[in-house]
Amino acid sequence: MPITQHYKFLSLSLSINVLIFYFFLQGTAVSNAKHVIRDGIQDVYCTNFPPCLAIADLGCSSGPNSLLLISEIVNILDDICHRLDHPLPELQVFLNDLPGNDFNTLFASLPKFYEKLKKEKGDHFKCYITATPGSFYGRLFPSNVLHFAHSSYTLHWLSQVPRGLEGVTGISLNKGNIYIGESTPPDVIDAYVNQFQMDFTVFLKSRSEELVPGGHMVLNIVGRRSCNQWKKEVFKLWELLSMALREMVSEGLVEEAKLDCFNLPYYTPSAQEIRDTIQMEGSFRIDSLETFEISWDPDDMEEDDGEDKDFVIDTFRSAQNVTKWMRAIAEPILMSHFREVTMDELFQRYTNKVAEHLGREKGKFVTVVVSLANIK
Amino acid sequence: MPITQHYKFLSLSLSINVLIFYFFLQGTAVSNAKHVIRDGIQDVYCTNFPPCLAIADLGCSSGPNSLLLISEIVNILDDICHRLDHPLPELQVFLNDLPGNDFNTLFASLPKFYEKLKKEKGDHFKCYITATPGSFYGRLFPSNVLHFAHSSYTLHWLSQVPRGLEGVTGISLNKGNIYIGESTPPDVIDAYVNQFQMDFTVFLKSRSEELVPGGHMVLNIVGRRSCNQWKKEVFKLWELLSMALREMVSEGLVEEAKLDCFNLPYYTPSAQEIRDTIQMEGSFRIDSLETFEISWDPDDMEEDDGEDKDFVIDTFRSAQNVTKWMRAIAEPILMSHFREVTMDELFQRYTNKVAEHLGREKGKFVTVVVSLANIK
Repeated sequence: MPITQHYKFLSLSLSINVLIFYFFLQGTAVSNAKHVIRDGIQDVYCTNFPPCLAIADLGCSSGPNSLLLISEIVNILDDICHRLDHPLPELQVFLNDLPGNDFNTLFASLPKFYEKLKKEKGDHFKCYITATPGSFYGRLFPSNVLHFAHSSYTLHWLSQVPRGLEGVTGISLNKGNIYIGESTPPDVIDAYVNQFQMDFTVFLKSRSEELVPGGHMVLNIVGRRSCNQWKKEVFKLWELLSMALREMVSEGLVEEAKLDCFNLPYYTPSAQEIRDTIQMEGSFRIDSLETFEISWDPDDMEEDDGEDKDFVIDTFRSAQNVTKWMRAIAEPILMSHFREVTMDELFQRYTNKVAEHLGREKGKFVTVVVSLANIK
Repeated sequence: MPITQHYKFLSLSLSINVLIFYFFLQGTAVSNAKHVIRDGIQDVYCTNFPPCLAIADLGCSSGPNSLLLISEIVNILDDICHRLDHPLPELQVFLNDLPGNDFNTLFASLPKFYEKLKKEKGDHFKCYITATPGSFYGRLFPSNVLHFAHSSYTLHWLSQVPRGLEGVTGISLNKGNIYIGESTPPDVIDAYVNQFQMDFTVFLKSRSEELVPGGHMVLNIVGRRSCNQWKKEVFKLWELLSMALREMVSEGLVEEAKLDCFNLPYYTPSAQEIRDTIQMEGSFRIDSLETFEISWDPDDMEEDDGEDKDFVIDTFRSAQNVTKWMRAIAEPILMSHFREVTMDELFQRYTNKVAEHLGREKGKFVTVVVSLANIK
């Protein structure tokens, strides 16, 4: 894939990041992640008490939630230092995303953010925010400068569409699918698995060089429940979009060849695959690895009432909620390839398919939260 | 001045930076500045041979020249290391400008820049570019992280319009001028001098905390020849603009009160004022302080022929060249205040005034290049 296209795809992490962060703030998920971040920060700070703590947020995006992690970490640090009766260290934050991310909008929100910090933590607390554009599948920072790195819902975007999705005759092996679907053959799955392992290995190696020895990293990754039950565990949200596109192919509204040659640079690894790749790469000790689920529908807060049901009651309303944010993510990717498709029509069909699915079973994301310590 | 207006003004440093850098690259000026930068880099690198050299470019702007300093420093480092038979250290570059600067455009040029570096210096050389939005009249970076800081043609923008430009009755003391002009009374000049001293002191103090002990700083500042001959040394380019506006006031095209209450947050210090403020602040040793002149007109390369004349021959063509870039700088500032003024008409009058002036004497900028070492 040409580099520009790679950037185009990956910069979409910003939409999914913002949207999934919204889910993430709901329910119990947030307390799991907070706890893991707190342990990591406490460990790196209390080992050497550095006068300045350097933090990186990888795939920061540019939405209203981009600075939430910083607020969270400032509160954690404030709490730790208060308990230890220590003055707060300086905080240097490196925000990272691809060069195509809208950093101007992010920077425009900084003066207000600094004012808020000053009001809450006082003049003596110094936080320096800096942006580093570039792909995290490679080095972004000098050696041994970071104490803590974080990545939230971005590692599911691969560095490129895997190679080998076409047979020797140039015919697509993943016909009718835009990602791994029910009809995807094992060779295509293997190509996706390999690309994830290669990318994640480069990610780990790069971060290991950038983190100080003993530095921590917390990653939230959209994943799968198990390693080998692909048929059951296709990422249903994309599968339903493939189905809508197949329907439009059958009605002559989309060219079949166009659908066949389109594949997302996307992968949802299982907890075991994440664990295996970390162990194989060898630079990090796994301090914790947890898996949890959150509903597709941001309005579905039933878990909080302790009344989690297996199905959705108002399926159409829920499907509309799901379509709203999936469209924000998928439309820009689809539009650059399926130029002839009317997006309103595609997503109307999609809503119907999501509603049908939700009538049978509830839609849930699997998230893997892994906490790592640099053992180089 | 409200903070947003301050940002609006200061973000204009980007235009003047780009344009004056263009002048700067002409003639002998560039060799003076290169030499000073080379000495600074050599000194900080050869004192401790840090594995990673951290550099800041303060007021980087977002034009095509924003990355020129980095190229220059990479070449200098490469040369030093080649002579010493040392491997190149990592290079961390912090680009700084106000949050309103167009960092998106700057970042879009990074992938090509990295490719070029890789081609020229090889894979082993690592350069990490990062952006820090914020005003350099305050802290931007953690303590003791920078080895070298640079600022090119930005320190003439003050943090705000000086206070005290109105008398006790609220009447403007700087009537008919947009900056210090021939009719400006001493109290207004004092207010400008004080504002420069305060701002520059904060700048020096902030950088001193951010630079490692012995760290270097090179500043190029638009200045004046002498301390006390203000009448002779008004910044003629603004004075001519004030004259054009006064002419429009006399013809009823601009409200007199509007002109009277408008003052630029701008100051052109003399070499002596720069030296005095540095010594008074006390954190830096002055390694060198040089003054040189360059023509207003970027096409005027007569100095290179060794035939420097006292006047301009094709005054109208030269005046058009000058107007072109002065308009790029001044128009956005003026438009937000003089909403009723037709800019085409104002700058037509301006061209005539510049041409008249160039018929009498050649227009020249004074630049002060000062090299400093952190003695904290």
